[in-house]
Amino acid sequence: MKPEVDYTLYLVTDRELMSTTTLDEAVAQAVKGGCTLVQLREKDCTSLEFYQQALRVKAICDAAGVPLIINDRADIAQAVDAAGVHLGQSDLPCQVARRMLGPDKIIGVSAGTLPEALKAAADGADYLGVGAMYATATKQDADVTTMEELKAIRAAVELPIVIIGGVNESTLPRFAHTGVDGAAVVSAIIAQKDIASAARRLYPLAAKLK
Amino acid sequence: MKPEVDYTLYLVTDRELMSTTTLDEAVAQAVKGGCTLVQLREKDCTSLEFYQQALRVKAICDAAGVPLIINDRADIAQAVDAAGVHLGQSDLPCQVARRMLGPDKIIGVSAGTLPEALKAAADGADYLGVGAMYATATKQDADVTTMEELKAIRAAVELPIVIIGGVNESTLPRFAHTGVDGAAVVSAIIAQKDIASAARRLYPLAAKLK
Repeated sequence: MKPEVDYTLYLVTDRELMSTTTLDEAVAQAVKGGCTLVQLREKDCTSLEFYQQALRVKAICDAAGVPLIINDRADIAQAVDAAGVHLGQSDLPCQVARRMLGPDKIIGVSAGTLPEALKAAADGADYLGVGAMYATATKQDADVTTMEELKAIRAAVELPIVIIGGVNESTLPRFAHTGVDGAAVVSAIIAQKDIASAARRLYPLAAKLK
Repeated sequence: MKPEVDYTLYLVTDRELMSTTTLDEAVAQAVKGGCTLVQLREKDCTSLEFYQQALRVKAICDAAGVPLIINDRADIAQAVDAAGVHLGQSDLPCQVARRMLGPDKIIGVSAGTLPEALKAAADGADYLGVGAMYATATKQDADVTTMEELKAIRAAVELPIVIIGGVNESTLPRFAHTGVDGAAVVSAIIAQKDIASAARRLYPLAAKLK
């Protein structure tokens, strides 16, 4: 059975943006503060380090009853029995990952445009990460998705949608009642000194998206 | 059923060492020249690029009847239905990869020392890559495995062993009759202008290892 996922406040990790704590502690604080879903994203480590980090974060998420999604690496997701995988447009194709992970794992796909969103839906994605809504330190080169494009995607696709890219306390209210299912947040949580408080402040804003 | 593997002359790719051709063409020439096994190693590309490259190399290997092993990434190995995966000491643990890939895939493990070799054997590896036998451009920081250590590993472990690291036309004859099963070669094949000829010259030297 595919797990039930609450997309409201989706933490996406970024080790480079952290300054005050370990990644384990950051994730623990984020779920304590109300994050409903966690994506572990690691770009510059060995597979062994990624696996070991994923095991630790999985234990934290399990204890909090929050599903863990692994960025990019379907093998790491399988290795730690994560809830699923998140695939960017430069990662494995969704259909290939589905064949590997089976029907019960969550597969999220990044979609910046309506054609990408429609393709992901046709390929069997479980949710879409739509953005970047704003240029960010994390994705400086990302093409920005306009509010119009987001609305077009929302109108065209029935899958859960999370917005991502520059989502923070100031920008999040602009998406109230756009009908999306949640907000994926990187620096507005992970880069904060008090991560639990940051999540706690963001949660009610994210809960007004639908 | 686990595929029968001939370890005699094992090409390990390295895109950075190539100068004269595409990787597809290099692999095609190498198997034409007599390589009996191919390992696709990619370090600086996206998962999508790795997957697409692996699909192309798989087609070349299939046409030549040569098994393809994927370096590090068990997900890419599954995605292209490769013969198996090769795991370094910084990659996924062998037992984790085995759980993922099942009993019929080949799992090779890099072992530089006798304890690493014994652990890999206990963990269910199908073959060992022992080395680096010499410091190389590919692995400048690798600890060198001595001839004595190689012999100790050969005496202690029944698995097929391939030597790797600085294996070329001059060094290969030193390992004649050491009882190893093959030679894994990077630059002495992939960096050569005439890749097929390089493989053709190495093959008879590699065939004298047992």
